[in-house]
Amino acid sequence: MDSLPLVAAPLLRRQIVAVFTQWGMALKAVEEAAEVMVDTDLRGVDSHGIGMLPHYQRFFASGELDPKAVPSIRQERPSTALVDAHHSIGHTAALLAMRLAMAKAKETGVGVVGVCGSNHYGAAGYYAQMAAYEGLIGLSLTNAFTPFLVPVFGRQPQLGTNPIAFSAPGERHPPVSLDMATTTVAYGKVSIARRAGKRLPDGWALTTEGTPEHDSAVAAETKLLAPLGGTRTLGGHKGYGLALMVEILCATLTGASAEDRITGHFFLVLDPGAFRDAGDFRAELDTLTDRMRATTPADASQKVLVPGDPEYAAFAERSVSGIPMTPALIEEVREVCRDSGAPFLLLP
Amino acid sequence: MDSLPLVAAPLLRRQIVAVFTQWGMALKAVEEAAEVMVDTDLRGVDSHGIGMLPHYQRFFASGELDPKAVPSIRQERPSTALVDAHHSIGHTAALLAMRLAMAKAKETGVGVVGVCGSNHYGAAGYYAQMAAYEGLIGLSLTNAFTPFLVPVFGRQPQLGTNPIAFSAPGERHPPVSLDMATTTVAYGKVSIARRAGKRLPDGWALTTEGTPEHDSAVAAETKLLAPLGGTRTLGGHKGYGLALMVEILCATLTGASAEDRITGHFFLVLDPGAFRDAGDFRAELDTLTDRMRATTPADASQKVLVPGDPEYAAFAERSVSGIPMTPALIEEVREVCRDSGAPFLLLP
Repeated sequence: MDSLPLVAAPLLRRQIVAVFTQWGMALKAVEEAAEVMVDTDLRGVDSHGIGMLPHYQRFFASGELDPKAVPSIRQERPSTALVDAHHSIGHTAALLAMRLAMAKAKETGVGVVGVCGSNHYGAAGYYAQMAAYEGLIGLSLTNAFTPFLVPVFGRQPQLGTNPIAFSAPGERHPPVSLDMATTTVAYGKVSIARRAGKRLPDGWALTTEGTPEHDSAVAAETKLLAPLGGTRTLGGHKGYGLALMVEILCATLTGASAEDRITGHFFLVLDPGAFRDAGDFRAELDTLTDRMRATTPADASQKVLVPGDPEYAAFAERSVSGIPMTPALIEEVREVCRDSGAPFLLLP
Repeated sequence: MDSLPLVAAPLLRRQIVAVFTQWGMALKAVEEAAEVMVDTDLRGVDSHGIGMLPHYQRFFASGELDPKAVPSIRQERPSTALVDAHHSIGHTAALLAMRLAMAKAKETGVGVVGVCGSNHYGAAGYYAQMAAYEGLIGLSLTNAFTPFLVPVFGRQPQLGTNPIAFSAPGERHPPVSLDMATTTVAYGKVSIARRAGKRLPDGWALTTEGTPEHDSAVAAETKLLAPLGGTRTLGGHKGYGLALMVEILCATLTGASAEDRITGHFFLVLDPGAFRDAGDFRAELDTLTDRMRATTPADASQKVLVPGDPEYAAFAERSVSGIPMTPALIEEVREVCRDSGAPFLLLP
């Protein structure tokens, strides 16, 4: 990574803002989506930050993403709501929904907000963490309409990589923050293996016959991913079951239809204070974090981590050094700029 | 399984009732726990029905399970509550909490109820399914204080097999019902492999050095289970992260302390009608179920299933033929009866 060009976060942000503005996106959505995307790149989740810009460009070109759309609340009760994104970029709809869920949780102890008619919302973890930074517990789920996940016993992709993100606040420690695809690996890892010419292990990808695919070049082409667990013997039915749960909560519950290439999200926020003293909750979460970190390691050089640790480390480093970008991605961004008439700012 | 003695559900129920009654358990708790346990055996989840009776006997003997305890609501708001089980058997506390969560969901769209001070509550899926049978979406989580799960990069067990159960109602089809341990396999599967003298695959169990354990006899003794995913390469950090999420919601949020051998539960219920037309939700879930079942199978003799299918099949068969019980389990139940002075009813 050391040899890759490093782009400072503010410059990355200006580049994203330039493109979205050129598309005619409303100022609020521009700023919100850019904020989430840059934060995601700072946390080291390279697949979901500016790396998504070429995809968003395609959704914009096809009309699936309406830059002028303003998400609105379709129905609401004290602890629940449904937001209609009206085909806006997902980030701005997700922020509206998550803020609403947080407000409801502060008021009533719990807030549940679904979103229909949306688009890709970036990294699921961003929204869950918003809750934790205000002392709340957050859950953020999204379906994804590109079928990658092959159900156990099948040989045809049926679900997206449908992620689960969860975040809970400590007092001394940063939030425990899980953000995981329900496939063994996200598609980005297969691409990385392909570029490195690496063989895939059992449990990552499948052939069109439903057997393990080891050739990363073929897997990158066929895009058939195994659910978390991989095979039936190793619990692949659990990863598939979790992906289906996410699909039900994000699409079936909200009315977003994955088959029609429409994305839905699901946000749940809990106020620990509705169940016990909120300070006791945070202190006890710190104790749990400490206990996990103190687990006897298998190899003394690699301590046991808590979900979120790798992202906090990346954030600390990249905030100072900048965000590494591959030449291929820089070229893709240059192309997006050319296609949309936005200035290309990343390189001098 | 064909050669095993088959016990009819009503007889199994009478046996459980006889033991609990002998312990001096309140009638309501006796009937509720027996109902959940027999239903679990009918569904083929052998590890969590009468198979737990010898464990419950130990909790009763040690005083961890108080047969006279009556669970009560400790704090409550329109959409949330905390139930204190006062060390009752888990089933009766879980039923109180789940019914409360369902009533809140019907009233406000969502109900979230935590339980502290509890014991083992049987199969997580039972409670999630209660919601689905009333047209609601149910989530049921429990921590378990026996440490089995070894965090990724560790070689020491830190968490229970902390299950996740989710259930959602269709119209034509039975509920989609997921019930999964967050370890690759529950401990029961290691026991079964040991009795069969089978070698364990990578990803099930670990040695005390943190490497894969293949000897099922050793694994049954050391009780070190890998999180779902197994190794870091195959996503073991995701299974560990999910187990930690369950721990936070069931123990940290409720104040149940796993380190003090106290169990907590977490129930979430959603009314689909708070988000869209409830009938549309159920119809669309049927469509999703149909789509999953129609996945091109890898092997024509094994169709793609939907979570819950194996349990519905077991229920249909066992309701007619009876519940198979191993001679070892029958002897254990005989011993429980002898220890507690209850009549042994299973064999003529």
